[in-house]
Amino acid sequence: MAYTPTSTAQPVKAVLFDVFGTVVDWRTGVAGAARRFASEHGLELDADTFADAWRSRYAPAMRRVSTGERPFVSLDVLHRENLDGVLADLGLDPGRFGPAALDRLNRAWHFLPPWPDSVPGITALKRGYIVGPLSNGNTSLLLDMAKAGGLPWDLILGSDVSKAYKPAIEAYLRPAAMLGLEPGEVMLAAAHEADLAAARKAGLAAAFISRPLERGPGIPEAGVATRPWDLSVSSITELAGLM
Amino acid sequence: MAYTPTSTAQPVKAVLFDVFGTVVDWRTGVAGAARRFASEHGLELDADTFADAWRSRYAPAMRRVSTGERPFVSLDVLHRENLDGVLADLGLDPGRFGPAALDRLNRAWHFLPPWPDSVPGITALKRGYIVGPLSNGNTSLLLDMAKAGGLPWDLILGSDVSKAYKPAIEAYLRPAAMLGLEPGEVMLAAAHEADLAAARKAGLAAAFISRPLERGPGIPEAGVATRPWDLSVSSITELAGLM
Repeated sequence: MAYTPTSTAQPVKAVLFDVFGTVVDWRTGVAGAARRFASEHGLELDADTFADAWRSRYAPAMRRVSTGERPFVSLDVLHRENLDGVLADLGLDPGRFGPAALDRLNRAWHFLPPWPDSVPGITALKRGYIVGPLSNGNTSLLLDMAKAGGLPWDLILGSDVSKAYKPAIEAYLRPAAMLGLEPGEVMLAAAHEADLAAARKAGLAAAFISRPLERGPGIPEAGVATRPWDLSVSSITELAGLM
Repeated sequence: MAYTPTSTAQPVKAVLFDVFGTVVDWRTGVAGAARRFASEHGLELDADTFADAWRSRYAPAMRRVSTGERPFVSLDVLHRENLDGVLADLGLDPGRFGPAALDRLNRAWHFLPPWPDSVPGITALKRGYIVGPLSNGNTSLLLDMAKAGGLPWDLILGSDVSKAYKPAIEAYLRPAAMLGLEPGEVMLAAAHEADLAAARKAGLAAAFISRPLERGPGIPEAGVATRPWDLSVSSITELAGLM
């Protein structure tokens, strides 16, 4: 296995993955946890909408760290704060549930189910490449997810290692440096074009993985790449086959 | 699997391993690389003595970082500096070999052979515990070693993540924190009692693994524990069986 993308003209040594949406199905996982939470507390809520509302607070929360408005805190902390916001938006006082129940719900992000092709695809790539996450998740979140889902990463360096959130350039450069690699020896595989664009700006190769169901069914143009990337595939197994 | 040591009275969730000497046989690996280096350059040298001399500079070099005499640099850098010292002690000018040959020899530390029980023992422990290195090696060194030797770590957080060398307390506390665990939920497994003593001081559980051949054959009392530890075993497979 020795794949050299045109954008970098260097053989790829490591394939690092965006995780939420690319490797795991956050919407199904979080909605399932929200459904259990609702039934335990006798609440009426639409679990899919709840998951979407929680996720919609994700990027703005990280942006406040990236702009320096607040110091780095882990994604677990941001998810937990965002959960309070989602509940408040639904007219629910977070205080009525108690911290243990909310922390348990917050840990849904640690145990999201992989897409069906993720484990076989990463396993195949691992034979010829270093494989790992390049995610805004913290190390313990990514570790729980890997253990529960059987994701066979070679190593896990969460955003709490690089102390930076994508799309900040350090979020791409620091993991490459810790692997002892040049940016051009690393490929990011992601379902989100903004992530790939930032990775390419940092000098990484970029592979698009189409995940049309990430935000639920029936979304027009979901999972369609609008720009050419080094590779563009519809599964991680397909990616492994091409590399 | 749920093992609770007496020293911590908490169930262990992660078993982290000292690497050089405990998981891999540094002396055989480094001596083999020194032998190849000597033959390539037409040198007469005793490869085992060369490995011992190189290793003897390891602790003093890290101590200069731990005392603040110099800022943190990776173990790759320290090993490379120490190599110059070993060559000079043998009356060999490092300049005569060229940086590429010396860098290649330095990378011997990335590709040390696991002891025969390491892969099966870590594989067995991985079913019930988080497994990873807790080593003074940098992440890229530990990653190369894992890929080459088949060490099935769940994650690799090198000393360049914690920016501290054992036995500094941060070298034990920072990995535990990144795993989202209390110190008492982590067990260090090591062949060196000073390492175990420092881990215990930091609140970790401690398992002694006897490696009587680490420094070569025929050393009296090698591999004998002088103090009681939570567990004391002669292989990682034995450790897995007890936990």
